[in-house]
Amino acid sequence: MNAMKNKNIVVMGGGTGTYTVLSGLKTYPITIGAIITMMDSGGSSGKLRDQYGVLPGGDVRQALVALSESDLLWRKLFLYRFSNGDFQGHNFGNLFLAVTETIGGNFQKALDMAQQLLHTKGKVIPVTFDKTNIQATLEDGIVLTGESIIDERVPHRSPIHTLSLESPARVNPHAIEAIKNADCIVIGPGDIYTSLLPNFMFKELVQEYQKSTAKKILIANLMNKAGQTDQFGLSEYIRIFSIYIGVAPFTHIIINTGKISEEARNYYKEYGENEVADDLNVHDKSMQKVKADLLSDSVFTQVEGDKLERSIVRHDPEKLAKILLELLYGN
Amino acid sequence: MNAMKNKNIVVMGGGTGTYTVLSGLKTYPITIGAIITMMDSGGSSGKLRDQYGVLPGGDVRQALVALSESDLLWRKLFLYRFSNGDFQGHNFGNLFLAVTETIGGNFQKALDMAQQLLHTKGKVIPVTFDKTNIQATLEDGIVLTGESIIDERVPHRSPIHTLSLESPARVNPHAIEAIKNADCIVIGPGDIYTSLLPNFMFKELVQEYQKSTAKKILIANLMNKAGQTDQFGLSEYIRIFSIYIGVAPFTHIIINTGKISEEARNYYKEYGENEVADDLNVHDKSMQKVKADLLSDSVFTQVEGDKLERSIVRHDPEKLAKILLELLYGN
Repeated sequence: MNAMKNKNIVVMGGGTGTYTVLSGLKTYPITIGAIITMMDSGGSSGKLRDQYGVLPGGDVRQALVALSESDLLWRKLFLYRFSNGDFQGHNFGNLFLAVTETIGGNFQKALDMAQQLLHTKGKVIPVTFDKTNIQATLEDGIVLTGESIIDERVPHRSPIHTLSLESPARVNPHAIEAIKNADCIVIGPGDIYTSLLPNFMFKELVQEYQKSTAKKILIANLMNKAGQTDQFGLSEYIRIFSIYIGVAPFTHIIINTGKISEEARNYYKEYGENEVADDLNVHDKSMQKVKADLLSDSVFTQVEGDKLERSIVRHDPEKLAKILLELLYGN
Repeated sequence: MNAMKNKNIVVMGGGTGTYTVLSGLKTYPITIGAIITMMDSGGSSGKLRDQYGVLPGGDVRQALVALSESDLLWRKLFLYRFSNGDFQGHNFGNLFLAVTETIGGNFQKALDMAQQLLHTKGKVIPVTFDKTNIQATLEDGIVLTGESIIDERVPHRSPIHTLSLESPARVNPHAIEAIKNADCIVIGPGDIYTSLLPNFMFKELVQEYQKSTAKKILIANLMNKAGQTDQFGLSEYIRIFSIYIGVAPFTHIIINTGKISEEARNYYKEYGENEVADDLNVHDKSMQKVKADLLSDSVFTQVEGDKLERSIVRHDPEKLAKILLELLYGN
């Protein structure tokens, strides 16, 4: 690894996977930008969106906490979920963002206040400030509207044919700027249709991504997801990314070689979910596989955050960060 | 006024009146302690107390905001009230205190976090950390339990005979300490039974107050309150304070001489409320009257905070602070 000049890394996503990547990167002397999806439609975010007309802040909140250098208490505050009473099911961080957006007049103001409170390292960049939803057209013609509906684990549901936005939305110029200045762009791990591709629903952003000479790194998912990527191999992921991002969407793919336990595999099997197999043939040097044991040793821990409960097999933040740093400062 | 050494002023109360006094004092180079009641039982505080088992933080929140030197946005955040949806009627500052108390394990931790966020000048000191209620026994024998019930404006309700605590509670040692170090103790304005006397339900605190050689200043209320102080003159207030605090409860009484408008008086009359008349005969030098125009010029402004909506006639924070500073640094 070369001497560390302060390089720019941009992480794109939303949800648990992005949380893991950002948590790992946080401790390094690098500049971090996190481009985060803004189309959450369920749970606490969804209710706040419906009742108070605010933007869904759930994914942004997770990214903020991941990058927070504040005391544990402040991070806990943003992850706190009410288990009963008037606020049951709601998350305090989402509430904070909702109220500060209302008071401050816009979501950026809310973000600024949260970043100040949480002493976030780097910048969290919502991909858009417009209110919209993602929409999945299934192969049988059915149209699912809203992230939470698409996100439901429905084994053997008709496969998703096309992802689009329900209503037009403008990309956040800061997202374009971040991609322009990136030395390295990291995508995944995460649900392809509900956490990763929503960021690429913006033509201007896709163009900027294609133009970029940064290293473009996909962190391959460990497990498939019922209703989204049933029985997918890695090549199918790449094929789908190519549809939305263009040919040769990545320069590197990080693939786990650590062995997933029988117990965990059985757990997923109950939901009709299996491991992502590496069936990818790389014919040229345009795309490199980077393989390592990336599994987290820690057993299933129920974290008080939206989507963290169900991932019992997870990437290890430290292992991921180490590999990413090697790529960032390598040749 | 002498050169300003950094003197200690302690303000005792809860609610709007205390908010006004603290707001005015905030800008001066003095040390401020605010001993605040903790027996709120209605509204947002009451619900949080019932549903989440936390202490009622409404009065503390108001004092925190009054002493805040943060940007307006942070203060607005703590005053924000949801006007619709699942959270209707709840106040965000109360919610913040409830969640941080839950996460931090105690109310002092919540207070520390809020003080950090709001950059409060001085210290807000809850009079107790024990959960209790005030209880009023009326002259007709009826017992009212809980601040919000006692606080209801009920004209011609049987007068309150005795105020007590529903269950025993320990005084916060920091309150004792604050009184011990005070150069000046300010009480009022505020509802005598629900904002002022609750702080004196603690024997140890009353003893410390009696021992204190500080100036003890009552800011006389402008208007009486239906159900609590119907048709009271100032002498009746002093008589009641004497019951709980001892003879000669104050060294100074600040009395407004500004003229309350006909319109405002008519407004209050509808609720069976009238001006507090100065019928007090001071026979010796132990208690001084300090008279001045103390009225706020600003017309009725609906502030987004618990109890601020109904006070259409109010003290002016600047005028009050000026008089208090003169007393603090005078002979």
